[in-house]
Amino acid sequence: MKTIFIIGAGLSTTSMIDYLLEKAITYNWHVIVGDMSLEVAQRKVGTHPKGEAIEFDISNEMLRIEQIGRADVVISMLPSFLHPIAAKTCLELKKHMFSASYVSKEFKKMDKAVRKEGLLFLNEMGVDPGIDHMSAMKVINNIKKLGGKMTAFRSFTGGLIAPKYDNNPWNYKFTWNPRNVVLAGQGTAKVIDNGCYKYIPYHQLFKRTERVDVLQYGEFEGYPNRDSLMYRELYSLENIPTMIRGTLRRPGYCKAWDIFVQLGVTDDSFSIKNSETLTYREFFETFLEADSNLTMEQRFAKLFNLEKNSTILYKLRWLGVFDDKIIGLKNATPAQILQKLLVEKWKLDEDDKDMIAMQHQFEYEIDGKIHGIKSSMVYEGKDSVQTAMAITVGIPVAIAVKLFLTGDIKLAGVRTPVHKIVYEPVLKELEEFDIRFIEEEYVVE
Amino acid sequence: MKTIFIIGAGLSTTSMIDYLLEKAITYNWHVIVGDMSLEVAQRKVGTHPKGEAIEFDISNEMLRIEQIGRADVVISMLPSFLHPIAAKTCLELKKHMFSASYVSKEFKKMDKAVRKEGLLFLNEMGVDPGIDHMSAMKVINNIKKLGGKMTAFRSFTGGLIAPKYDNNPWNYKFTWNPRNVVLAGQGTAKVIDNGCYKYIPYHQLFKRTERVDVLQYGEFEGYPNRDSLMYRELYSLENIPTMIRGTLRRPGYCKAWDIFVQLGVTDDSFSIKNSETLTYREFFETFLEADSNLTMEQRFAKLFNLEKNSTILYKLRWLGVFDDKIIGLKNATPAQILQKLLVEKWKLDEDDKDMIAMQHQFEYEIDGKIHGIKSSMVYEGKDSVQTAMAITVGIPVAIAVKLFLTGDIKLAGVRTPVHKIVYEPVLKELEEFDIRFIEEEYVVE
Repeated sequence: MKTIFIIGAGLSTTSMIDYLLEKAITYNWHVIVGDMSLEVAQRKVGTHPKGEAIEFDISNEMLRIEQIGRADVVISMLPSFLHPIAAKTCLELKKHMFSASYVSKEFKKMDKAVRKEGLLFLNEMGVDPGIDHMSAMKVINNIKKLGGKMTAFRSFTGGLIAPKYDNNPWNYKFTWNPRNVVLAGQGTAKVIDNGCYKYIPYHQLFKRTERVDVLQYGEFEGYPNRDSLMYRELYSLENIPTMIRGTLRRPGYCKAWDIFVQLGVTDDSFSIKNSETLTYREFFETFLEADSNLTMEQRFAKLFNLEKNSTILYKLRWLGVFDDKIIGLKNATPAQILQKLLVEKWKLDEDDKDMIAMQHQFEYEIDGKIHGIKSSMVYEGKDSVQTAMAITVGIPVAIAVKLFLTGDIKLAGVRTPVHKIVYEPVLKELEEFDIRFIEEEYVVE
Repeated sequence: MKTIFIIGAGLSTTSMIDYLLEKAITYNWHVIVGDMSLEVAQRKVGTHPKGEAIEFDISNEMLRIEQIGRADVVISMLPSFLHPIAAKTCLELKKHMFSASYVSKEFKKMDKAVRKEGLLFLNEMGVDPGIDHMSAMKVINNIKKLGGKMTAFRSFTGGLIAPKYDNNPWNYKFTWNPRNVVLAGQGTAKVIDNGCYKYIPYHQLFKRTERVDVLQYGEFEGYPNRDSLMYRELYSLENIPTMIRGTLRRPGYCKAWDIFVQLGVTDDSFSIKNSETLTYREFFETFLEADSNLTMEQRFAKLFNLEKNSTILYKLRWLGVFDDKIIGLKNATPAQILQKLLVEKWKLDEDDKDMIAMQHQFEYEIDGKIHGIKSSMVYEGKDSVQTAMAITVGIPVAIAVKLFLTGDIKLAGVRTPVHKIVYEPVLKELEEFDIRFIEEEYVVE
């Protein structure tokens, strides 16, 4: 009997736990779910005969050694800064480890030791990173097999509100961590475009969007993610002239969001004086130049060259940017204040469903001719617990663990799912969950 | 016989050393000048009977204790990060200390101990900080004495090229540390304007200029410095509704500089790939969106809404932004590359002279009426050694040391020259050097 130990029982683990408990009957596994809150762990496990819920704190060394010691495979769903602690203990106790988190530089350094012990540490097994890697590598390797030479790779993913529930002027609601959305894109984005490196500072990022059409879901816009360049090595596309990874939003979002960037209200590096007693209107006023002849709305419009009937002003008014409502946050940074305003307006209604949209664009040359293939996936959530985000993050990890325990994935070292031995069976099984990619050819201009 | 020990014999110490050596004959002082380079120290001291040049390295503890031990007063002209080392030794050995550098928070904490020993650590005694504090406090205290209530304080300073030598399209040359000019303004500027706090992010800063007219020198533009708010406490103007400190440039500079900010080429946080072999044209290309239908110049113009005959494009062309010249810097950040380009173009000619321009604007209420006073100072350098920067930084420190040793400044603790006992005699003696402020009344709108 194999024992699987899942650390963390948060939002994205529900589908994973359900999947593994179900398979546990077939394969005679024992599934332990540990969380800081015993109650949360118990709720996820229920009364399942193969399940066990425990209270677990990764920072408690004795408990960590004891519980990881019982397992054959550990799934770490901890926040990324706690991963290294779990990973080190797994290495010491010679346990395999799976996660949906990025392989940090520190983590990468463990590769040799992990390999030496014949262990597998398989990471980036969620949706982004995860499904993006797998679906991209599948097409890239097919193209290479046909003798094609990749000339461009563009890839966009977005966590959005499903169309039926998409009923606000921003066409956006928070389906995941709001803080990440408010701070998204800070720093300098790096891409390569037609052989030329391109550096895009934060205050240009939301102006540098491109149109992305996804299946019957229509039009989106994509803005570049931080460092697209490192994916060249990961995907074995070292000399590709065009490589861009980005985030999807509905058209108009980026132009309006850029107003916040330009004002400076996404800044998280200093506190606003008297933030507790200010109104949102007064908060936004502190980022505008004074001019007693113009109203605040008029100064917004003037600063950003907006016409009176601009839909951007409508979006701002709808959010309550001009409202005399007290913020009520002590010593808050601009980003924290903006987040509070957005959370009130962009929250999911009880019956809302979310959606993950992903599209890769591959361009390649065969016999002097350039071809284009789009590979797109859209997945809508089932309800407020079985969200698209939770399912697409949790299910691929769970499938990989199953395939590993049944001997179908034979691999050692610190890995990501760019290997055929991983992505082929995982993608295949994901189709059973209706997580599937549709390929379309397109004409490259 | 009193001994003065000057640590550092760099650019800004020439006038100071000359002044102190001259006074040393009258007052029978011994003046020791220590520098990492004995030759540099010797060149400054010459064969003066009251002078002594030594090789001195602040990080050598034995040497530090020995040489500071010989002195009655230490003048630290070290880079600011080395000040604390000198200060701690001065406190241990019970020596007074003078400098032209900012009082850091760490430094401020020594105040109690310094005071307890009856020592004076007088800092911010250069031009900015230094002459700005003294000239502002003089007028502020006069206004308070007349029963006036300060309603606004604006203060602008610039290190510029003197008008006669101002012969390039930017109306700017490097008269001081180029790196500081390239990185100027990064972060968020904070001011208070008519009772409303204003936060100005870097990418708005060079758009938020105001016109400043200085004596017969004509028109300048000022952009806000980082944190103007902390000057309210320093100047005892806690409740003043308007407080802005800024930097002066000639009109048009900020609008053109803003192009660099908007592009992202002042970024110092990452390295440009292949920076060694790129040309400047290729470097700037990496910050522009690709578009094969337009030339690079056309894309610049389009991105920033510039007309074909824009003087901004002229400034950029004049700098060589569009030139196929190799950069030749390994692993360089954008800011380092920009600096290299600018240093070649903005360097001083051999007979060029620099200029310091400063203007304070005071607005105050007496008997319900609002009054305005401008206090302006412009000082031109004498030659390439006796620059305006060197004289205005070095002479106030030297005067303060003289006044202290002659018993005219009686003060203890970690101080800045906001005290009348300091600023009154120093400003008076600065007039002998033609460093003088001209007051003009103006009508407040």
